Amino acid sequence: MSGRRLDVLAVGNALVDVLSQESDEFVREHGLERGAMTLVDAPRAEALYSAMGPATEVSGGTAANTVAGLASFGASVGFIGRVRDDQLGEVFTHDIRAIGVDFRTPPASDGAPTGRCLIVVTPDAQRTMSTFLGAASQLGPRDIDPDAVAATDITYLEGYLFDQPEAKEAFRHAARLAHDAANRVALTLSDSFCVERHRTDFLDLVEHGVDVLFANEDEIGALYETGDFDAALAHVRGHCEIAALTRSQKGSVIVAGDDVHVVGVHPVADVVDTTGAGDQYAAGFLFGLTHGRDLPTCGRLGALAAAEVISHLGARPETSLAELARVELALD
Amino acid sequence: MSGRRLDVLAVGNALVDVLSQESDEFVREHGLERGAMTLVDAPRAEALYSAMGPATEVSGGTAANTVAGLASFGASVGFIGRVRDDQLGEVFTHDIRAIGVDFRTPPASDGAPTGRCLIVVTPDAQRTMSTFLGAASQLGPRDIDPDAVAATDITYLEGYLFDQPEAKEAFRHAARLAHDAANRVALTLSDSFCVERHRTDFLDLVEHGVDVLFANEDEIGALYETGDFDAALAHVRGHCEIAALTRSQKGSVIVAGDDVHVVGVHPVADVVDTTGAGDQYAAGFLFGLTHGRDLPTCGRLGALAAAEVISHLGARPETSLAELARVELALD
Repeated sequence: MSGRRLDVLAVGNALVDVLSQESDEFVREHGLERGAMTLVDAPRAEALYSAMGPATEVSGGTAANTVAGLASFGASVGFIGRVRDDQLGEVFTHDIRAIGVDFRTPPASDGAPTGRCLIVVTPDAQRTMSTFLGAASQLGPRDIDPDAVAATDITYLEGYLFDQPEAKEAFRHAARLAHDAANRVALTLSDSFCVERHRTDFLDLVEHGVDVLFANEDEIGALYETGDFDAALAHVRGHCEIAALTRSQKGSVIVAGDDVHVVGVHPVADVVDTTGAGDQYAAGFLFGLTHGRDLPTCGRLGALAAAEVISHLGARPETSLAELARVELALD
Repeated sequence: MSGRRLDVLAVGNALVDVLSQESDEFVREHGLERGAMTLVDAPRAEALYSAMGPATEVSGGTAANTVAGLASFGASVGFIGRVRDDQLGEVFTHDIRAIGVDFRTPPASDGAPTGRCLIVVTPDAQRTMSTFLGAASQLGPRDIDPDAVAATDITYLEGYLFDQPEAKEAFRHAARLAHDAANRVALTLSDSFCVERHRTDFLDLVEHGVDVLFANEDEIGALYETGDFDAALAHVRGHCEIAALTRSQKGSVIVAGDDVHVVGVHPVADVVDTTGAGDQYAAGFLFGLTHGRDLPTCGRLGALAAAEVISHLGARPETSLAELARVELALD
């Protein structure tokens, strides 16, 4: 990467979302895990795509959505993730660069095509995701640019990377490089099923390798195997410097040592699609954190970005978040 | 194609739409012809795409949008158009087959990639289109299946095909085959700039080779070089069996020999995006015509389909038009 100092460098799966509206029956018929993200192989992805109705393609990926939010706030951000040198890879690359994100991971010139997330939207506006990782799963330690990590305030990692051994190594490598350079590491647990798959690894990471943790109620409960939010909160308190825990309509709770900050949601006239709320909360929070804001303000910035994204279809902001922060929170 | 009899077989450009929101300044800066469809070559398309912000990909093409509407009404429809064997070609093929359209044109295995229409949406909700035809321009007479045309009530052709010599030949060939089998030929003039480019050819066609003509006020004015709608109407009256002329908020006028039917618009609570109104008007009209409806009912079906498509973003219906026709027009 260039010599430019970055606020946040995210490492994640580079995916293109393929969305279609389907009935509840469709979800049942195809044995999909409702509301979850399930990994699928190429033949399964092909069969599912064949069965889906007409679709829309947009760039996605959880950490990539977060850097899109950060860019919209005006942060200087980079992204590391793998596409192939195919048309969907061009779509992903175009979209992320178009918003000013420093994205330089060279596309794979052979192997699986660019990864995609087949998203089935049911009449209740819930999304059921089947991800074919494709080229994204080729991400490895060699893709982590040590100079970029050293020149970055916070390296942000998505939990989904743990689903592939090489990507997991890339993840650990990036975390080590960040700490070696006395920078911070942030992690999002991604989803509760992902936490179930990798609980031991995640517990170890949260205790020893993560400074800022993002999780929703389900995810933090899955991590500590408890349905009691306060119990989970007591666990995480001693494990990482900052934990930002989101609770849907109940807002978020930020835990930092002995401090606990409760932050309400930002008002939304009409909730259209809740996808991406967590990704954008992380964007607002990390923007605050890298711009000298106190923790309650970081939480409010997260709530603001989440409110923007749930007011329309799609997981990336459609309004300038920098402008919204000025107007709605009087932050310059 | 199969032995199945089709109501409508459309021949058109197989395109994927690439949409982004841009400022009025963007349109000026890149020298775009505001509100028009301009053909661009590969380097120009690439330069423009690079300059565009993050985008959404959806299947498009004017005649393809019309068959999507017809399928939504429950008509049996086919489409002939060329994609390449690439990812965008797969997207187009998936989407059109997913709605039940018989689409069998083999994808090109070399040459230009699948065509795309770069659509810039300005704050006034207007769309400015730059089309890179790509593989679509490889459509030729060999792609027209004589058995399919013979087994089709109405063969529907888009005017944009005239922009490429081979596609124009395919168009003429399809029209001849349809008439040889005593079937009907419908034509949409596509847009007024397209009419300007091919006026003499279109005039000849309308007089000798077209049974049903679709045009909006600008297009029919461009064809007869007049700004006076009544004058244009007088011209077209003797030239083809049926002309369905759309006039935006003023509804449509259907001319058939000595008969003139004026049909109002269908009420819309909130106009979101007027793109595709003409494509869907044609869908409703052709559905009526192939299902034994009288001309005023054909016009009302067109108005209904147009109303559906302008109430949301995108040029293809998102609600079942068959269901809407039952509920709103009491047609079974």
